Amino acid sequence: MLNNNMGFKDNLDNIVKNNNSLLCVGLDPEADNIFDFNKNIIDATYDMVCAYKPNIAFYEAVGIVGIEQLKKTIDYLHKKYPEIPVILDAKRGDIGHTSAAYARYIFDYLQADAVTLHPYLGKDALQPFLDWKDKGCIILCRTSNPGAGEFQDLESNGKKLYQIVAEKVVNEWNFNNNCLLVVGATYPQELAELRKICGDMTFLVPGIGAQGGDTEKTVKAGINSHGAGIIISSSRGIIYAKDPRAEAKKLRDMINNYRK
Amino acid sequence: MLNNNMGFKDNLDNIVKNNNSLLCVGLDPEADNIFDFNKNIIDATYDMVCAYKPNIAFYEAVGIVGIEQLKKTIDYLHKKYPEIPVILDAKRGDIGHTSAAYARYIFDYLQADAVTLHPYLGKDALQPFLDWKDKGCIILCRTSNPGAGEFQDLESNGKKLYQIVAEKVVNEWNFNNNCLLVVGATYPQELAELRKICGDMTFLVPGIGAQGGDTEKTVKAGINSHGAGIIISSSRGIIYAKDPRAEAKKLRDMINNYRK
Repeated sequence: MLNNNMGFKDNLDNIVKNNNSLLCVGLDPEADNIFDFNKNIIDATYDMVCAYKPNIAFYEAVGIVGIEQLKKTIDYLHKKYPEIPVILDAKRGDIGHTSAAYARYIFDYLQADAVTLHPYLGKDALQPFLDWKDKGCIILCRTSNPGAGEFQDLESNGKKLYQIVAEKVVNEWNFNNNCLLVVGATYPQELAELRKICGDMTFLVPGIGAQGGDTEKTVKAGINSHGAGIIISSSRGIIYAKDPRAEAKKLRDMINNYRK
Repeated sequence: MLNNNMGFKDNLDNIVKNNNSLLCVGLDPEADNIFDFNKNIIDATYDMVCAYKPNIAFYEAVGIVGIEQLKKTIDYLHKKYPEIPVILDAKRGDIGHTSAAYARYIFDYLQADAVTLHPYLGKDALQPFLDWKDKGCIILCRTSNPGAGEFQDLESNGKKLYQIVAEKVVNEWNFNNNCLLVVGATYPQELAELRKICGDMTFLVPGIGAQGGDTEKTVKAGINSHGAGIIISSSRGIIYAKDPRAEAKKLRDMINNYRK
């Protein structure tokens, strides 16, 4: 998708520069007329963002009619704003044969540019996703929920599970240079540790806004050596605001203020 | 679904007795006319099985038309064979607000009786699934793929991650008595260890057949104190057999032979 012969990462780098933005708007509508709702948000914010991130759960929740609205939303984005990558938040992960089927759905049928993935089954299970070299594979590392540490903080040989996941992704899974990590804004200390482990790898950072993540701490902890490397995602805080454009601009500018 | 006022676990216990079967047929069609393909398999095997397990990836792979066929398949099963539980293999898992949306899709819209879930985010994330007390929540523990041990075998305080997951599910997540675990047939030693940790909890056991799991070792390692407690799932080995009924009967009888 997007520009010919360019992968997700290059497209992301370009839009981060062109829109001067590290803000991703999460399209998680709980509304009637999902497409119209999304279109209003998109048309109001397209020059403020570096990505859109629909979470497929909110479309599936209303059944096939919702999935049709998701497809229509992604088609609209690619047609009207082809320079903006679409991250499908789908948190998939199964054995290889099955992951290949999921990848066909997400990358080929729905035409997403990147997807979020569960690491629990290991590299061989996710290989069919990783092999789509022009698509982004965004692996869950340290999630934003209150109980994220239940397993992710377990220590093995002096390292926590989420750190081991990060090292594996950086050193062994990223052979196509198409991997990113999910790191919650609600855990700025862990975010800072992961920045040390992961070089300049880009992190998708949910948890700002409704979930309580602090923007200043998040940006300062997560930014890479190029003053970028984080995609800060906000959903409910923007899409249900009285003026989504004003809210998106405010958050984009606040993020940029802390990048300096 | 199924019988009024009875949950997934009771219905499973009943069909295990009535069909004298621990066999689950995985409905993972890679075919044209998915519903017709499934209907043929179902009508040929309904009295040989204790459950059907469609993996949603194979339906999603062909887009909305595939999801329509999945819904049609589940509707057909509930109408024609209401005593047989339907396990949706969907391997979902997200933060709580989002898991609630997935649960609505899987339990309310698609009308599945049970679902497979990723443990990586912890209990608070899966709580909205666990709260559906009449539905089965089948948590990934030790998966069947070759690289399953990459994270699942990491040791923390003398226990492996998959053992810690099992203990958490048994002791803290199963407050509605609706939890099961996924344990691959390709790892009979781990299956035997988990049986010791988990009492009589039921395991969904994929990996027989195309993935190479051994039936005798699997049954002997996995069986609980009631001579049951395992749902042995086979997909490709049955649905693409020349005679699916004969193949299902053969595997059911072989499993029963080792239960004695």
